[in-house]
Amino acid sequence: MSYMLDEIHEQPDVIRRLVREERERVEDIARKVRERNVSLGVLAARGTSDNAATYGKYLFEMVNGLPIALAAPSVFTLYHAKLRLDAALVIGISQSGQAADVIEYLERSRELGAITACITNEPQSGITRAAESCLLCHAWPEKSVAATKSYTASLALLCLLSAACLERSDLVDGLLRTADCIQRIFDCCEPEIAERAERYRYMDECIVLARGTNRATAFETALKIAETSYMSADPYSSVDFLHGPIAVVEEGLPCILFAPSGQSYRSMFEIAERLHSRGAELIVVSDTEEILELATTKFRLPFSLDDIFSPIAYITVGQLFSYYLAATKGLDPDNPRGLTKVTITR
Amino acid sequence: MSYMLDEIHEQPDVIRRLVREERERVEDIARKVRERNVSLGVLAARGTSDNAATYGKYLFEMVNGLPIALAAPSVFTLYHAKLRLDAALVIGISQSGQAADVIEYLERSRELGAITACITNEPQSGITRAAESCLLCHAWPEKSVAATKSYTASLALLCLLSAACLERSDLVDGLLRTADCIQRIFDCCEPEIAERAERYRYMDECIVLARGTNRATAFETALKIAETSYMSADPYSSVDFLHGPIAVVEEGLPCILFAPSGQSYRSMFEIAERLHSRGAELIVVSDTEEILELATTKFRLPFSLDDIFSPIAYITVGQLFSYYLAATKGLDPDNPRGLTKVTITR
Repeated sequence: MSYMLDEIHEQPDVIRRLVREERERVEDIARKVRERNVSLGVLAARGTSDNAATYGKYLFEMVNGLPIALAAPSVFTLYHAKLRLDAALVIGISQSGQAADVIEYLERSRELGAITACITNEPQSGITRAAESCLLCHAWPEKSVAATKSYTASLALLCLLSAACLERSDLVDGLLRTADCIQRIFDCCEPEIAERAERYRYMDECIVLARGTNRATAFETALKIAETSYMSADPYSSVDFLHGPIAVVEEGLPCILFAPSGQSYRSMFEIAERLHSRGAELIVVSDTEEILELATTKFRLPFSLDDIFSPIAYITVGQLFSYYLAATKGLDPDNPRGLTKVTITR
Repeated sequence: MSYMLDEIHEQPDVIRRLVREERERVEDIARKVRERNVSLGVLAARGTSDNAATYGKYLFEMVNGLPIALAAPSVFTLYHAKLRLDAALVIGISQSGQAADVIEYLERSRELGAITACITNEPQSGITRAAESCLLCHAWPEKSVAATKSYTASLALLCLLSAACLERSDLVDGLLRTADCIQRIFDCCEPEIAERAERYRYMDECIVLARGTNRATAFETALKIAETSYMSADPYSSVDFLHGPIAVVEEGLPCILFAPSGQSYRSMFEIAERLHSRGAELIVVSDTEEILELATTKFRLPFSLDDIFSPIAYITVGQLFSYYLAATKGLDPDNPRGLTKVTITR
């Protein structure tokens, strides 16, 4: 049995658990944000957590109107900058709690007067000591090197915090509905994902595209595929893709598209048409027939979700596809070559 | 003769010209920034200009202490967010001045009370009407689809603005010295770049790595290679690369490393050692013997520059390598397949 697959399946429970356990701590941070009149958010993270930060940027900007900068940790670690952060909320994200440069970013931000918080799966880690406040993933031990449940937990915590800053309990309900949708992916779609992965046994490169909040989904799916199948998987926001990289598309190139109905759908449909006319092979994840019709491989999701929530559910299709692809290649997705669970970079 | 090569060679003159022509306009914007007590910068751009924005983020954070967010235009174009931008300077970058989503980002930012400016090569374009203030690249017509001189011009304008906000004329002197360094690359290094490109005639993928301010150099080089040679070129900050993608490195994989002496050097040397021990093929651009010794292809630069300026000079090596690589593959770098000079995305 695989840790990665087990952990993918735990995700609905993890989300329900953290909604139950972390609401008070989330409200404490939200209260500080309102009292201190925060005008800027900064998210500091690496790897998978950085993809969670991308989601956080879209979420807080669209829902809360709060401008979000993604941290460039080397601004502190290499260049010792004196950033003006006195009206900022700085959140560090690290499932292991050991990312040295994220910890240093939080420490320096705190000295510079920012409100600091962290999101982690490890209660007694370096990052919990560096930040004023701490939000826990409640994902329990994550044994697979390829992180899955700590990623969706980070998204869910960002969503809870966004909701709490506006005192919007409807968003908490939406989050719990999203956990149910993930369960439906396992029940209705997983067998097909497992079966279709076989077609891509000898694929050696692919493109992953999405837009808006699901930009995070494209980047995280590409990272999962690269980590577990050792292949080149290039993620793009579909708009950035039109500014150059579309030149590399050749007949048969596999392109994975995340296209939930919602505000980003129309633009994804247009790019699907362009790729289809160039002869690319489309693997489409969507709840909408129109775009699925263009695909060679269709992962039809039996629910529709707003762009606020769809990244939390859609990534599980990316995770499952990565897992079954590695398995069909005879690889061990739990222990990818050349990677360790904790990467400490300064 | 190739437009792309001609335009690469014009870059020192373009920089000298814009320093001469734009200083007053730069100082006007800097004055507004000081008077309005701006506490946040936002840079909006796509494609090559987005790589210029990455440089701008590092530059303004390290030199000016001003937190910088890179815009996610879809926050306005798809999600109609009400971002809090009343204490922000928002700069849109578009060489053609026609990037529709960047224009919309500027228009909405202006309505929301931000100070707005644009950087463009086209004086009478949509972006100049959208922004309050305008800085011109003075790159004159750019005929190659692969943008080169408008990129370095955008970096130079960001550098001038950073200098003006702090009234630091030493940075302007540094910028003019950098223009001289670019000329020395043409005089001393270009013949070797042209010759060495031949070794990579049949390369079909590569990795491009850098750290700190040269993260922009890695991303822009990868985009140039992808645009002109239709191959998969994956750029990473060297730190992000350790968080996953390093698993894809196989014996002989070409890795291009930008490693100027300066604050980011030590970390680049460490990654070069790791890649070397995994059998990767290193193409190193540096002024430092220690890291060049690990390389199969060494581009030794005959000057040293601070990390503030090195991205403006080092990218020209990436541009030349992209040009000669496409030429040795028998491709036309001026007119890449599937691309047009102006990409309008909404």
